[in-house]
Formats: sequence, structure tokens, C-alpha cells
Amino acid sequence: MIRIDGRQVDENRHTEMDLHFTKHPEGSVLISIGDTKVICNATIEDRVPPFLRGKGKGWITAEYAMLPRATAQRTIRESSKGKVTGRTMEIQRLIGRALRTVVDLSVIGEKTVWIDCDVIQADGGTRTAAITGAFTAMCLAFEKALLNEKITAWPVTDFLAAISVGIDDSKQVLLDLCYEEDAKADVDMNVVMTGSGALVEIQGTGEEAVFTRSELTTMLDVAEKGIKELILLEKQKLGQTSDRILSLKGGQSS
Amino acid sequence: MIRIDGRQVDENRHTEMDLHFTKHPEGSVLISIGDTKVICNATIEDRVPPFLRGKGKGWITAEYAMLPRATAQRTIRESSKGKVTGRTMEIQRLIGRALRTVVDLSVIGEKTVWIDCDVIQADGGTRTAAITGAFTAMCLAFEKALLNEKITAWPVTDFLAAISVGIDDSKQVLLDLCYEEDAKADVDMNVVMTGSGALVEIQGTGEEAVFTRSELTTMLDVAEKGIKELILLEKQKLGQTSDRILSLKGGQSS
Amino acid sequence: MIRIDGRQVDENRHTEMDLHFTKHPEGSVLISIGDTKVICNATIEDRVPPFLRGKGKGWITAEYAMLPRATAQRTIRESSKGKVTGRTMEIQRLIGRALRTVVDLSVIGEKTVWIDCDVIQADGGTRTAAITGAFTAMCLAFEKALLNEKITAWPVTDFLAAISVGIDDSKQVLLDLCYEEDAKADVDMNVVMTGSGALVEIQGTGEEAVFTRSELTTMLDVAEKGIKELILLEKQKLGQTSDRILSLKGGQSS
Amino acid sequence: MIRIDGRQVDENRHTEMDLHFTKHPEGSVLISIGDTKVICNATIEDRVPPFLRGKGKGWITAEYAMLPRATAQRTIRESSKGKVTGRTMEIQRLIGRALRTVVDLSVIGEKTVWIDCDVIQADGGTRTAAITGAFTAMCLAFEKALLNEKITAWPVTDFLAAISVGIDDSKQVLLDLCYEEDAKADVDMNVVMTGSGALVEIQGTGEEAVFTRSELTTMLDVAEKGIKELILLEKQKLGQTSDRILSLKGGQSS
Amino acid sequence: MIRIDGRQVDENRHTEMDLHFTKHPEGSVLISIGDTKVICNATIEDRVPPFLRGKGKGWITAEYAMLPRATAQRTIRESSKGKVTGRTMEIQRLIGRALRTVVDLSVIGEKTVWIDCDVIQADGGTRTAAITGAFTAMCLAFEKALLNEKITAWPVTDFLAAISVGIDDSKQVLLDLCYEEDAKADVDMNVVMTGSGALVEIQGTGEEAVFTRSELTTMLDVAEKGIKELILLEKQKLGQTSDRILSLKGGQSS
Amino acid sequence: MIRIDGRQVDENRHTEMDLHFTKHPEGSVLISIGDTKVICNATIEDRVPPFLRGKGKGWITAEYAMLPRATAQRTIRESSKGKVTGRTMEIQRLIGRALRTVVDLSVIGEKTVWIDCDVIQADGGTRTAAITGAFTAMCLAFEKALLNEKITAWPVTDFLAAISVGIDDSKQVLLDLCYEEDAKADVDMNVVMTGSGALVEIQGTGEEAVFTRSELTTMLDVAEKGIKELILLEKQKLGQTSDRILSLKGGQSS
Repeated sequence: MIRIDGRQVDENRHTEMDLHFTKHPEGSVLISIGDTKVICNATIEDRVPPFLRGKGKGWITAEYAMLPRATAQRTIRESSKGKVTGRTMEIQRLIGRALRTVVDLSVIGEKTVWIDCDVIQADGGTRTAAITGAFTAMCLAFEKALLNEKITAWPVTDFLAAISVGIDDSKQVLLDLCYEEDAKADVDMNVVMTGSGALVEIQGTGEEAVFTRSELTTMLDVAEKGIKELILLEKQKLGQTSDRILSLKGGQSS
Repeated sequence: MIRIDGRQVDENRHTEMDLHFTKHPEGSVLISIGDTKVICNATIEDRVPPFLRGKGKGWITAEYAMLPRATAQRTIRESSKGKVTGRTMEIQRLIGRALRTVVDLSVIGEKTVWIDCDVIQADGGTRTAAITGAFTAMCLAFEKALLNEKITAWPVTDFLAAISVGIDDSKQVLLDLCYEEDAKADVDMNVVMTGSGALVEIQGTGEEAVFTRSELTTMLDVAEKGIKELILLEKQKLGQTSDRILSLKGGQSS
Repeated sequence: MIRIDGRQVDENRHTEMDLHFTKHPEGSVLISIGDTKVICNATIEDRVPPFLRGKGKGWITAEYAMLPRATAQRTIRESSKGKVTGRTMEIQRLIGRALRTVVDLSVIGEKTVWIDCDVIQADGGTRTAAITGAFTAMCLAFEKALLNEKITAWPVTDFLAAISVGIDDSKQVLLDLCYEEDAKADVDMNVVMTGSGALVEIQGTGEEAVFTRSELTTMLDVAEKGIKELILLEKQKLGQTSDRILSLKGGQSS
Repeated sequence: MIRIDGRQVDENRHTEMDLHFTKHPEGSVLISIGDTKVICNATIEDRVPPFLRGKGKGWITAEYAMLPRATAQRTIRESSKGKVTGRTMEIQRLIGRALRTVVDLSVIGEKTVWIDCDVIQADGGTRTAAITGAFTAMCLAFEKALLNEKITAWPVTDFLAAISVGIDDSKQVLLDLCYEEDAKADVDMNVVMTGSGALVEIQGTGEEAVFTRSELTTMLDVAEKGIKELILLEKQKLGQTSDRILSLKGGQSS
Repeated sequence: MIRIDGRQVDENRHTEMDLHFTKHPEGSVLISIGDTKVICNATIEDRVPPFLRGKGKGWITAEYAMLPRATAQRTIRESSKGKVTGRTMEIQRLIGRALRTVVDLSVIGEKTVWIDCDVIQADGGTRTAAITGAFTAMCLAFEKALLNEKITAWPVTDFLAAISVGIDDSKQVLLDLCYEEDAKADVDMNVVMTGSGALVEIQGTGEEAVFTRSELTTMLDVAEKGIKELILLEKQKLGQTSDRILSLKGGQSS
Repeated sequence: MIRIDGRQVDENRHTEMDLHFTKHPEGSVLISIGDTKVICNATIEDRVPPFLRGKGKGWITAEYAMLPRATAQRTIRESSKGKVTGRTMEIQRLIGRALRTVVDLSVIGEKTVWIDCDVIQADGGTRTAAITGAFTAMCLAFEKALLNEKITAWPVTDFLAAISVGIDDSKQVLLDLCYEEDAKADVDMNVVMTGSGALVEIQGTGEEAVFTRSELTTMLDVAEKGIKELILLEKQKLGQTSDRILSLKGGQSS
């Protein structure tokens, strides 16, 4: 079976990461996965939210937004509506939670890492692209913080990437769905994994459909393949920063 | 291993459902799972949201809230804050999505089913208790609508229930976590399944921890056991309404 | 004249209070007056609002809400609307003000008592039921605080209860209106009194109607009868806590 | 006993009404009661709120606000806070309810009367001054509407005015409390009456104090005296418009 | 050419300022320019916004609002909408910025001057009337602060006033537009100048029209004439306070 | 005098426009002026705001936002704050007003052009860059609408561009201020002009400073030079679309 954009069923879209994309943030990455483009910026702030004050630990939090015309139809700006949608909140919580899994928060001390993911063009998979881009931007920010002695040891313990998988109406499992595939999929699942191959988060949902344990297994196999390729790209892009991560996780390859 | 409340690792807490709990709603259920108590009310309204108008299909949507003292510490009322938290939105979207999977929305016509889940006492697993109670309340509402000829055919195609599973810090998989277990768990997963044993939704997350494919398999096995018991309770409580569901799904047992 | 539910004109509905209704709050009461059911929870917090800081006095504040299906038609959740209605604010202010009248705030020190009144089923008189239930829940919370030495002396100086009275379109004064009577009443009045028979608050309103001084007198007579019965119930339910109140107010009977 | 401003205990402050105060509104009155000054504007709009559409009846609704420096300390503007306080809502609801009592809403047809009460200087009794001023502004607006044939018959069935009464710490009942008296009063009551001497609304509250039935009687006697004087002023100011009201209520004097 | 209200093209409307208009504010002015009437109140508060704390400098900030019936059609109250419009924000920022230009903020120390401009009747030019009235109210407040030794030196370095100019559809430049002229103007410009004749702010806009450099020159000439007359009025009204300003700016006449 | 970035005092920064920057919008431009980068997207919607319905005319409206890390310090996202700042509103209103000046709104019929300006990197002059970029994006959208026969005639009557000018503390007039210059400037002015050299909008403000008529003249001269260069770039980039504009405005060169 050949997909609408000519890919194999277990093939990622072409992925690029443009590091240091804008000049102000401590870490800045433009990630492009097919036609999905997300600016991921990382900021390190010298304080933590109230619930962590005085505990000697840091925090990582994420915000996510789309430009109104990231999509085919213009969507209303959340600042104009005066509130953030449930979908946005779900994605923000997911990104923050995933990143916290691979960072030793006691190493960074009472600092907050703000991750801003702004989708400038959407074609499916924006939340998983945001996680992969945000991980890379966060590593750049920590590299700079280490250089400037704002942190004293390397805090990232493993690589992290995310991808979507789905099942179409002919029961075919597909990797890295573009928007058109996603809109027609029976089942949609987002998977976040580490460089060591451990699961960080799975969110599988059959909107008006269901899926079997066996289909779940196939989806996870395919997702793992896609994530390994993304982590390879992270390693290439991050260069010597990759070595810091590898040394912390005992040097084992993903 | 014996758990803090004396249960086996794969044992549900004692579960009860008190049908017709309050007098006004079309369907009303108080579900108690251990010390977690949720009032689930179903309302059928004669219109649909704008995006569905004129399409001949219905909609199911859910709202979820906690009384301020459902918890050990008082939480601020969301109406006082003037906005709904991300956690609440996530849960509301999950409940609505799960219920829509087992209802033929074209059978109910242009009607909206509102599901209100109000937690009056919380001890872990409120969102999964809400799904199980909401499913039952929704069936009561449809039974009444059928009787009053507001709908002309039975729309629910399968049973539906949900449970939490987790992994504690000794790597033990536990079924149906109470609050104290949940607060200490490394991995937390919510599973929604149908009476036929198909997966509707899985959300597994390792907050500051990860999990392996093998641990995922064990968690799903245990969740399936717990959900089967909940669906058995639904069948007993719903009586003749159960037969309508069974006949639609071809009479196969879960 | 016999009323729609068979009561005499000056007869309260059947009233029950279920103490310790939920497990977390310091004081928890489910009050049922006819088909009106309100969960009243009391929380004692170790701080006061800014305007009282450093003055050595406590504060009592109330919040009131209805479940969406407490009523025959579903009402929109105030957290979804993002704001609290004028009716809710009026009721919240009334409950707090009434309770503060019978508590010596300097005895409790710089603490805030939060009263949460959540109507799970409404059939008229929810605000007066809330006051009576809230008083009882507050006493339970103070009893526990005294036991735990969070307060050092008993602060409640008198009993407190509330009831509605009204005038129907045949000029008949009625005690404790149910919803159907309330909707048709020309005049509606809420009365709050102490165990000593003093007035704490009266709010009488003739929506598109008026009333005479003489009708006011009859309404107050009837309200006093109803309130005395509610205070008798409070005494029975509160047991030894009642004695603390009686000793503070000089032992005189209401 | 002589009061802080030299008045007798049952004496109103000097009261003036400046009719046609601003040029745009259909009815505009500046009411001054002592140092309390409220601009009351009435607007007639050719539509009703959704719940009244198609019923052939009109509606009257009020809004109330204070300039930030109407008070000795600057209060934050409600538009800056983004929400209206409970106190404001209570007052707005009271004004609208009171005015609706003396207007035959079926005579005005599907129109809404908006009453805007803006306090430019506050010295106690702003809500009762607002009711008296609003009644007068509303009469001016109806007079103009009758002239312009926007309404075809006179709709106001009686005069209406309001006053505050209170009890000070020496148990003395006082009429028309200024701010300094109000701040120290044990009991505070607002009374709204018609030209025929009927009660429209009473709101009596003993903040951290209580009152007896006998004190209530004295307060009502004194309030009635004060209101009669205000209605006399309305009659003088409204001139021929007064005759329309008198003829509708059967010509009886208040 | 004679204008709709009989004025010359370069003639201001009749202008009055009523000082000490309400009793509570430190400075209070009712400014009337033709039928435009704005209450301008100044409050001095003993703290500064967070961004200025510890810097030894003060701040001046303004709020602006219209009564709902300041206009021919009732406008919705911003407190009811729950947010302030863009137009209001623009005007507030303009007033604050203009006043800060003629005040030595280091002289007043860590204090905030709040300027409240409330339009009670609008007929064009409300924002420029507000600036002129606000300047005068602010001077009154500083005079009082100097008397009470809340400030130790005079901080206002020059006079300040503002006026509107415009170009009508026959290319005629007009000074001080009333509402009817403003609504039909092709170009509208607001000019703020000091007593020394220096420009503080110009905002010229051709809504659906444009203007030439030469027309700009004519507009500025006319505006300067109008502003000089307003500053003359300020000097007369402020009396000895004027002398303080003149001595600070070196005594030169405007 | 040489500026901090080596420019002459009357020299624009290097300016580029990247047309068709993202794929979904009808018109999409990334404008870079020095280090200031703004994505300008234009959307044409088939309806107008309520106040224009049935009048046969179109509307143009703009929204403006900054990514949180467009700036050196992270700014809080307006969607998180739940409201748009005064600065943002001012800029949005300016952009919409300016564009409407050069479009014949009756030619486009009852359509709304939405302009979204999102600053991804800020270094001074973001609002003027947004106007120039928005004009170009709007032309692309109209070109596409003409091709697709959504509009039947060309509606843009002239070119439009904007630039900032300022005066530094040595009284030197500077063209196109970068952030560092802007932060230190005594006077800041934004100028919008057409291709014919007419003024559309001038906003000059001396925050804590003033300026003379003569300085205003110099600022306008310099601004005109800068704007002419920007309009030249628009002509080059827009190619045949430029000819449509030129033919409408009578072919005269700017």
C-alpha cells in the first residue's frame, strides 16, 4: 500500500530541525515534519512556581499555540477569545510532563524552564513535533546555561522524541499521520519514548471506533521505529551536547 | 503482597451504583468505588452544537467537577476562579469521547446528551469512576427517552467501563489505585474498554518515570480483569436495558 | 386550606440532617427539607482575608452552587460560564453574614471558616436550607477544632436557622414554600433567626406585587414557628455540642 | 438626641432632584441626598431579553456603579477588574425588582427600560437614593415615550421611593443614615414603599448583631415617614406626570 | 464659512472648569467644552507599580470611562462586558503619557497619581477635554499634597492642554470638532502641547482618507491657537498654583 | 554621526520580504527589517461584522501578537493572561485603519480581510514592519481572490508603507530605530504614507520629553525617504500586482 503522499506505511515524513532559529531565546529550534512547522523556544527563569519554592528543585512547563492561519481555515486567536481551549491545555500538559521525565530537576535547582511551542504551519502531528523540537531547544538552553555557569552539572538523562500512529478505515496501521490521514483515521495514538526505548507516555483513542490489543502492539512497533529515527536526528544536530546525554545514561545506544 | 487497604494487587475496590439517585435528571447514578463517590447525571436536550446542525446526528458531551471538599484539602471552586483547569478539561473531553464510541449518534437524531459528573468525595480514580457511572446514567436516560418516544430505536451498541492501573516504586502493577497509592505511583494509566473487550482509550503516563512494553502488557491484562467486573455490575443494575445493548452487539458476552 | 403537598399553611416540610455525610471536611451535613437536598461542608483554614490580617479576629465566608441537574431544566455550570451569577452572589453573602452573627470571631483567632453549600436537588428554599445546614456543619467543625486544640474556647453564641414564607395569590400566608408554591407566590420572604428568637436577617420582596405591614406581621409569626422547629432538630442532632451553645447564651431556651 | 450632622433621629437629609441633568437620555435625574449624589438615567430600548420574546410584555433592568473616587478611598474600577462585585449585583437586582412592581409591563409592550445609576459622590444610602432617582428618571422617559407615541398608555401605577433606617449601638433607631452612621450601625435596613404605603421590599440585616420584632416595627414606622417625604418631592418635581400616576392608582393620596 | 454651531473655523467651543467638583478626591474638576462634560479626579497613592519599586520615582496613570448614556445611543458598560475596549485603552495610555511629560517624577517620590476621567456627557473631543481637565485636577491634588507635606517640592514643570482638529470633506480645517463634525471629518487629529508651545503628542489619522504635509501644518497652527486659550483658562483657574508652574519653567509665558 | 549598527542617520535597516511564506493563508509574507521579523498572513472571509451587514461594503481588521520569546525577556502569552494588552489593541487598530485607507471597500463587497501579524523576533519597529508586510500580504490575497473570481475588480488604490523615526538625547533625528535606539529615544514617531506621498497616520509622542514644530518637520522628511524605499521594494516584490495598483491610482509614480 502506498500512502497519499507516496510514503510507506511505516515511514516518517521528511524531518528537519533548524537550530538557533531566532536570536533571543536561550534555545530556539524550528522543527519541520513534512509540512508541519513548529517554532520551539526554551527560556530558563530564575524561580519556580509557589508549590516548589524552597525545595531545591526546578520545574519545566510548556505553552503551545497555533498562529490563526497555521490551518486551512483561520482559527480564532485564543488571546482574543480570552481563554485557552481544552485541546491546547491537554497538549501543554503533555509536553511539560514528557520533558520532565528525562531531566533531573534537582540538578537545575530552583529554576523554571519555559517551553514555547508555536505552530506556524500545521499538517498533522503538531503536538508530537512540538515534543521533539522542544526537547532539542531545551538541550540548547541547558548547554548555554552550563557555559554561563547558571547550572553546574548536565541535567538531561536521556533523549526524548514523539510520533503519532493511527489505524485507517481499512485497518492499516500508519506511522506519522499527515492532516488528511489523521482526519480520516479510526484510531489515533501519540507515543513518547526515550532514547533507551522506554515508554514515557501513550495516548491512544478511538474516536467513534475501538481497537484490539493486537492492533495496539503493531502501533507501538511502528511508533518505536519512527521515534528511533527522530532520536538519531537529535543526536546529529546536538553534536557534543549529545555526548553529555549519552554519558549520563551510561553510554548505551537507543 | 497485600495493599494498604488489604486488597490483592489485581482486585477492584468495592463498587456500588445507586440508580435514580436524584429526581430531576433523565438518568441519575451515584457511583461509589471505595471512598470515591461521583454523582453522574444525564440530560437529553433537543438540539446539537452548531457544527452538527442539519446533519441528522446527535452529540454527547460531558462536564466534570469536584465539590471543594471532595478532597482532603479544600480546592478553590472553578466558578470562583472564573475558569476551568486543564485537568478538568482533559477529563471532560475523555468522558465525552469514550461515551460517543458506544453510541450510534445517527439513531438519536439531533439531540445532545449532557453528562454531568460531580465528585462529592474523592479517593483516587474519579475520572474512571465517572466514565462507568456516566455510561450507566446515559443508559437510564435513553431508556426513558425510548419510553417517551423521544427516540425511536435503541442507540447504545456496547457496554463501557473504565479503570486505573499503575506501577508502584517496587515495580508492582496495581489495579484500581486509591488516592494514597496513586500519589506514590511511578506510572499511572487509565483504560477504557467495551463489553466486547475492545480498547476505547488508553492514557499511560510516567510522571518523572518511564515504563517498558512488558509492563504495559501486564497493566492492560489487569485493567481488563477490573473492567470485566464493572461491566458485570452494569449488566446487573441495568436489567432489561442490558438486553437492549446485548441484542445490538449480537448477543456476544464480554 | 390544604396545600398541594397536603401540608397545613404553617407546616414545615419533613426535614432531616445527615451529619458527617462525606469524610474529608471538618464538618459535613446533608440537609433534606422535603425534596430539597443540600450538602453543607465546613472547612477551617489557618489564615484570614487581607482586610483582617493582624487584627486577631477570624472570618466566615460561604460559597453556594447548584449541580446543573439539581433543577428540572439543566442550568449551565457557572464554572463553564466563567462567572458567578448575581443570584449566587446574593445567597453567598447572605449565608456568610448570617453565620457571623452567632459566632464570636475574636474567639477563633485569625482563621477563616469556609462554608460550601452545594445543592444536589432543588425544590424551593435552597438558600434557607443552606443556612440551617451550614450552621450545623460549622458547629461540627468547631467541635473538631476544639478537640484538636486548634481553637481554645467555644465560639458559637446561639443557634441559627432560616426558613422561607410567602403569600399566594389568594392572600394566604404559607410557611416553607416548595418550588411550585414559590413560583406562583406574590410575595416571598426569607427569615433568619437565632435560638433566642431574635431576627438576624429578613428579606421580603414582592416581585410585581406589594404587601402590607399586617401581612408582614403574619409572615414573621409563621416563620418564627418554622424556625423554632428547625432549631429543635439542630439541638437533637448536635447533642453535647448543643450544650456548649446553650451555656454560652446563658442556658435560656429558644 | 442630636445626630452628628444635627438632624433629629427621624429626619431625612436635605434632598434635591435635578431633572433633565444630561441631554442624551430619555430620562435623566441627578439626585442629591445630603452628600450622596447619584446620576440616574433611563433608556427605552425596542427589544426585550430572550426569556420575554413574543410574550407582549416589557422589562426593566438596572445597572449601578460608583466612580472610583465617589468614596473617601479610591475603589478599583469594576471594568478594570473585569467583573462586577456581589454588592453591585445585589443592588442592581434590587433596583430593577422594585421598579417593576409599579409598572404595568404589558402596557409598554416588548421594550426594555435600562436604568443606569452612577454614584458620583457617596455618603451612605446610595442604593436607596438610586431607587428614588431611578423612579423619577423612568417617569420622565415614559412621559417622553408617550409624547413620541412609542407607548400608547401610561404604565406607572404608583409612586415609589426608598430609604435606609438603622439602629445604633445605643439601640436608637435612626432614619436615612449617612456614611459615618452606617459604618457604626448594629442593624441596617433598606425599605422600598409605594405611594399607597404598601411595602415593596424590606432588607434588614444585623451584621454581627440581631434585632427584635419590636425594633423592626419602629424601624418601619420611621422609614414610612421618610419615604412619604420623598414621594412628596417626586410629586412636586414630576408635575403633570404625577397626575398620570395618581389617576391610574385611583387618585388616592399617599 | 460658518460652522453648524455658529463658530468660526478656528474657534474653540465655550469651555468651563468647575474646580473641587466632588468632595472626596484630592483634586476634582468638571470640565465642560461645549456639550462635552468630563469629571476628572486625581488621587495620590503611597506606592508605585512593581516595575518602579525602589527607584525613588513616582508614576502617573489614567483611567477613562463613559457613562452608558453619555452618548445618544446607550453603550454597554465595560464592567458588564468584563473587558475594556481598545478605544478606552488607547485613551487611557494617551492621558497618562501626556501628563508624565510635564511632571518631574523624581520630585514626587514613590507615589502613584491616579487620574479618573469619567465622561458624563459626550459631544466630541472627550479625550482632549479629559487631558485638559486631568492636568488641572492633578495640579489641585499636588497643591493639597504640598500643603499636607506629602510632597516636599512642586513637581509640575509646565502647563499642558489638548485639543482636536480635523479636515472636513470640503478640505476645510476645523478646530475643536463637535460630535457631528467629527463623525463627518475626513481627517482627525489630536494635539497635546505644553504652555511653552512644545509638542507632547500628535495623533493624526485619515480614516479612509489621507492628508498632505501642508494640511498638517495648517492643522497644527490652528491647534496651537486653541491650546493657548485653554492654557490661559488653566492659569486663571489655578491661581497661585499657576505661579508655582511658571517659576519652575523659568517664568516664560506660553 | 555613525549609529550603533553603522547606519547613517537617515538610513533604513536591510529589509526583505519572503512572499508565500506559509502554505495555508491566501496571502503570506515574512517581513524582516534588520532583526525584526514578522509573519503577516491575510485571510478573506465571506462575511462582515454586524455593523456592516447589508451595506454592500467590506471590512479589514488586524490582529497582532508577539511570540513570548520574540523579545530578550520572555513576555507572558496574552492567551494565558486571558486578555489583550492596551499596547496590542493600539497596534491592531492602527494596522486595520491604515490598510482601509488604500482599499475601496465597496469593490470587495461583504467580505472581511483578516490580517494576522505575528512577531517572531523583535528588534524595534514591529508595528511599522507589520503594516508594510500586511499591505503586501493583503495584495497577494486579493490577487488570488481575483483569480478565483471571489472579487471581480481590483480594490487596492495605492501603495502603503510605514516606518518609525525618533530623536535621540543629542537631538539627532534617526530613521528606522532598532530596539536599543528606541529604548533611549526622547521622541518616537510612527508614520504611515501612501505611494503618492500622502500621510495616512502620524503618531508622535515624547515620553517624558517634548519636540518642536521644526523637529517634527525633519522627522517627516526622513520618514518620507524611508517609506519611499519600502514602497519600491513592494513594487519589485508584487510584480504584476503592482501594475494593478498603479493603474488604479492613475499611473503616477510615488
